[in-house]
Amino acid sequence: MARATNRRIADSTVRRLSLYLRYLEEVGGRGLATISSETLAKLGGTTSAQVRKDLSFFGSFGKRGLGYPVPELVSRLREILGLGREWQVVIVGAGKIGSALAQYSGFRHRGFRVVAVYDNNPAKIGTQWDGHSVRDIAQLVSDVTSLRADIAVLAVPGAAAQETAEVIVRAGIHGILNFAPIQLRLPEDVIVRAVNMAAELEVLSYALAHRAER
Amino acid sequence: MARATNRRIADSTVRRLSLYLRYLEEVGGRGLATISSETLAKLGGTTSAQVRKDLSFFGSFGKRGLGYPVPELVSRLREILGLGREWQVVIVGAGKIGSALAQYSGFRHRGFRVVAVYDNNPAKIGTQWDGHSVRDIAQLVSDVTSLRADIAVLAVPGAAAQETAEVIVRAGIHGILNFAPIQLRLPEDVIVRAVNMAAELEVLSYALAHRAER
Repeated sequence: MARATNRRIADSTVRRLSLYLRYLEEVGGRGLATISSETLAKLGGTTSAQVRKDLSFFGSFGKRGLGYPVPELVSRLREILGLGREWQVVIVGAGKIGSALAQYSGFRHRGFRVVAVYDNNPAKIGTQWDGHSVRDIAQLVSDVTSLRADIAVLAVPGAAAQETAEVIVRAGIHGILNFAPIQLRLPEDVIVRAVNMAAELEVLSYALAHRAER
Repeated sequence: MARATNRRIADSTVRRLSLYLRYLEEVGGRGLATISSETLAKLGGTTSAQVRKDLSFFGSFGKRGLGYPVPELVSRLREILGLGREWQVVIVGAGKIGSALAQYSGFRHRGFRVVAVYDNNPAKIGTQWDGHSVRDIAQLVSDVTSLRADIAVLAVPGAAAQETAEVIVRAGIHGILNFAPIQLRLPEDVIVRAVNMAAELEVLSYALAHRAER
């Protein structure tokens, strides 16, 4: 069988795989044994041809006319998405966004474990926050050796984001989920994904404002 | 001057315009009169040629060698992004994510005003939530005529998202910011933007898991 892990899969494909997995876990829990590419396509907002192409990265184990076996597909998807292990996450910026993410029910279930929370605000440092005592950002570099964090969730204001991201990188963390509304400039071996709620909202207001012209 | 509003601008361009605007508002507030395409490029994680191309949608009002005048650029960007007016927003799903967004400092400042909050959980209906009394989702359709909402923030679990989105559309709302981890299937005249934190996190875990292979 072809090993998907030897090929680099596009982000857009990974996002669809993530959607498929979320749905499969749901229907698998209800005892569904197989699923068709048509059903997955509807869920992912795509075509069944695209689903078959996406899943062909895993080798051809779906049987024609019978659909894909749900339990096998779930474990393959978990493996390819890097969910077969636990990821240690630090949250930098003890605000609402970090809290929303930390308490998101799928977060822990998928193997993302919050190991520490940081802030630079003296009024927040030392306070309890979702079961963690908020730590001083100045301690991050020295903490990381013992914490062995893999991923940082960066949820600080835009003006502080670049500088804070550089501290995160100095601490040896190579994955950043960036909620700050700026484009970070970091070494190439650091993997950054951005979630910019304000920009998405403005893509929406742009489209609504120009709706009449379409 | 060419009118940008007559052309459809790609989402990726709109996102960069949103980043430029956020930065320009910041430096404009500090009294900076002009800005170079190089500075904007650094911020947007792009090239100065791309910045000049992005801003050419607004006609050529930057003077060669002098950079762009900040106040004019801010007002043009606000206009093109549809921020020259107030948008009435309803939040559907009175949880952490909706709360994070509603309290995001840039939300109100940019003209997005939360006019009502809905949930289907009897334990939440009627409670106070960020200054709003949580209303029953069943009331949404009848409320919207008086509220005249433009945008709904959909922050409900995946399993309830499609059905809830259909209620939103029946209520006459044409813009949805979707935080639920599914691809919504809605009429073409409804504009949907998605923020899928879990998928971005898995794009990150995928990339980290396969990092050694690159």
